[in-house]
Amino acid sequence: MAYGFTYYTPTKVVFGFGAADRVGELVRQQGCKSVLLHYGSQSARRSGLLDRVEAALRAEGVRFVSLGGVVPNPRLSLVYEGIELARRENVDFILAVGGGSVIDSSKAIAYGLANEGDVWDFYEHTRKPTACFPVGAVLTIAASGSEMSNSSVITKEEGGMKRSYNDDLARPKFAVMDPELTLTLPDYQTACGCADIMMHTMERYFTNGGNMAVTDAIAEGLLRTVMDCAVKLRDDPQDRDARAEVMWAGSLSHNGLTGCGNDGGDFSTHALEHEIGGMFDVAHGAGLTAVWGSWARYVYQNCLPRFVSFAVRVMGVDPAGKTDEAVALEGIQALEAFFRSIGLPTSFAGLGLAPTEEQLRHLAASCAVASGGQKGSARVLREEDMYQIYKMAL
Amino acid sequence: MAYGFTYYTPTKVVFGFGAADRVGELVRQQGCKSVLLHYGSQSARRSGLLDRVEAALRAEGVRFVSLGGVVPNPRLSLVYEGIELARRENVDFILAVGGGSVIDSSKAIAYGLANEGDVWDFYEHTRKPTACFPVGAVLTIAASGSEMSNSSVITKEEGGMKRSYNDDLARPKFAVMDPELTLTLPDYQTACGCADIMMHTMERYFTNGGNMAVTDAIAEGLLRTVMDCAVKLRDDPQDRDARAEVMWAGSLSHNGLTGCGNDGGDFSTHALEHEIGGMFDVAHGAGLTAVWGSWARYVYQNCLPRFVSFAVRVMGVDPAGKTDEAVALEGIQALEAFFRSIGLPTSFAGLGLAPTEEQLRHLAASCAVASGGQKGSARVLREEDMYQIYKMAL
Repeated sequence: MAYGFTYYTPTKVVFGFGAADRVGELVRQQGCKSVLLHYGSQSARRSGLLDRVEAALRAEGVRFVSLGGVVPNPRLSLVYEGIELARRENVDFILAVGGGSVIDSSKAIAYGLANEGDVWDFYEHTRKPTACFPVGAVLTIAASGSEMSNSSVITKEEGGMKRSYNDDLARPKFAVMDPELTLTLPDYQTACGCADIMMHTMERYFTNGGNMAVTDAIAEGLLRTVMDCAVKLRDDPQDRDARAEVMWAGSLSHNGLTGCGNDGGDFSTHALEHEIGGMFDVAHGAGLTAVWGSWARYVYQNCLPRFVSFAVRVMGVDPAGKTDEAVALEGIQALEAFFRSIGLPTSFAGLGLAPTEEQLRHLAASCAVASGGQKGSARVLREEDMYQIYKMAL
Repeated sequence: MAYGFTYYTPTKVVFGFGAADRVGELVRQQGCKSVLLHYGSQSARRSGLLDRVEAALRAEGVRFVSLGGVVPNPRLSLVYEGIELARRENVDFILAVGGGSVIDSSKAIAYGLANEGDVWDFYEHTRKPTACFPVGAVLTIAASGSEMSNSSVITKEEGGMKRSYNDDLARPKFAVMDPELTLTLPDYQTACGCADIMMHTMERYFTNGGNMAVTDAIAEGLLRTVMDCAVKLRDDPQDRDARAEVMWAGSLSHNGLTGCGNDGGDFSTHALEHEIGGMFDVAHGAGLTAVWGSWARYVYQNCLPRFVSFAVRVMGVDPAGKTDEAVALEGIQALEAFFRSIGLPTSFAGLGLAPTEEQLRHLAASCAVASGGQKGSARVLREEDMYQIYKMAL
């Protein structure tokens, strides 16, 4: 039985090699007067992209101020700085030039500008924003899907708390997707991006809350395509077609499409990773693959039909003469082997980490708090379950 | 190589059994004061749906005037009537309750309200609208995809001219999709809807202008799902899951998703059908299946790789030991057999029509004019090609 859902993806996508040159026109169409140009490291400057974007804004007569310095697992302190700067400069539009971290930081600034009080409240879920300033994105990394999604993840340095807030208010007005910009990404980051993209679809796939055949067909096709392209990019990072496929798949994977009718999804792996990212500052995609296999083995018996479908239709497991349980486990193993084949970890050890018993307990406790006590659909996890999964992932 | 594209689907979808009850809240969120409630036949009244919608509007304190009478191949005369009524009543929102014809008629009224002069000009492509009044939809037929699409097709009675106009301005603000409303559709209309849905994806699939693997995977998965559900609904019109799948697939098939990176698509079959619909007033889906096989046989050699992919991945043709040409033809035959298996025609004769030579020439001439001289990507068709295809379809 298909469950009810809301699907809302208002972001205007302008996709293609060379699309970055259209950012000026897109900002002008927003009718804004003063832009906060938000970005990450100096690589955006060195590559010439920032110069291009700035020239495009000037050509359209759009005033702007710049704020760089966003890091992976973007920090609350920079969000505060951005809000203050944007208020001072009467900014009415936030233009993110970067990957998920920059877009998420931009969304947080946009919430902060439109609402009184501490923006962290929204990420702690103690109150809700009533509005959000408009955000646009020039995407440089295919991974987070934040360019079309309603989600934003911010890390509060104090206590290493990585928290997410999802609200349609923050869906970007436009997203410029120019695969050219991703040709120079380091291999590890490319692989991490592919894993993150896959996980956004898989989080929506492994549920006990019903599903729709058309959504499954889309999800499975997307996963197969991303896996194929991840291997192509491992072998040839300059494969332009594969860069384009992965970039578009990244947006579709997290804009809601792959979860329509699937009752909200599971999202436990993301919750488990957020704690690892908050404590150890690892790459998000690698944190996800480090813990996914342990999560899957812990929950699969509770969600067997979905793990069997996944094994057969995505991982190509031949089910002939095997029990469902064997098929499911073979699928899990196959995906872990795939992750390793593109250079990603499938354990804490693979991340170069050896958390202490105390740290594992802390991760589980924090994950439970952040999840409001429990998380998941494939299997509902509580603090002790989370601890067991972290322990299995050592 | 993937081609550039723009993807813009701002329509908020509220999907699910019982979703129709949410229309009042959605209209209120639009902040409008006076609604034109536009619908088709009295079946919407008899079923109780109109009463429900009216009660929902009243409950939200929204004023409305009603205009029914939309017919399949919706008429320009009623559009004029709607514009006049809506102007007189200071309408600021058009709510379509019905299928594609009602939504298309609503879009035409919305263009007419927002622009001076004759609204038919837009459908004749002699000038472009600069604005469009907001439209929302309560969908009762899964077929046209108009509830999320930018397109609208209107027939001018004088001369039987069926013309389309596509513009993002007219994308509905919201679409309420309640599969419950489709449970009582006649079998023939259900089958026609499935064919129309399939064709919206196939028109985008058969191109020579490049393609993206992730788009293909989505398109092929959607086609397989709709075919599967069409058979289920032939055997059991009350299959609620299948009704839901088809309804959602219908929107995804025509909102742009299945064409991303595919260079605009072909759309010759639609152009060919529009003339048949204009002259003989047949059901749109049946008109499409009546002419598709002839179109496919006429063009496939010019677009062989795509016809081979379609045959293998959608129709399940085993390519072992066969030439590409044989595989492509087997795929075409298999789809025609499928259409017939759900009660749809694959020729003019199947439609109960025997057009004269003069009528065939007229259809081709009119199709060429409506297409601006030529049409298509799988193979570019001119008037003589169109005539040949019509003749093959006798």
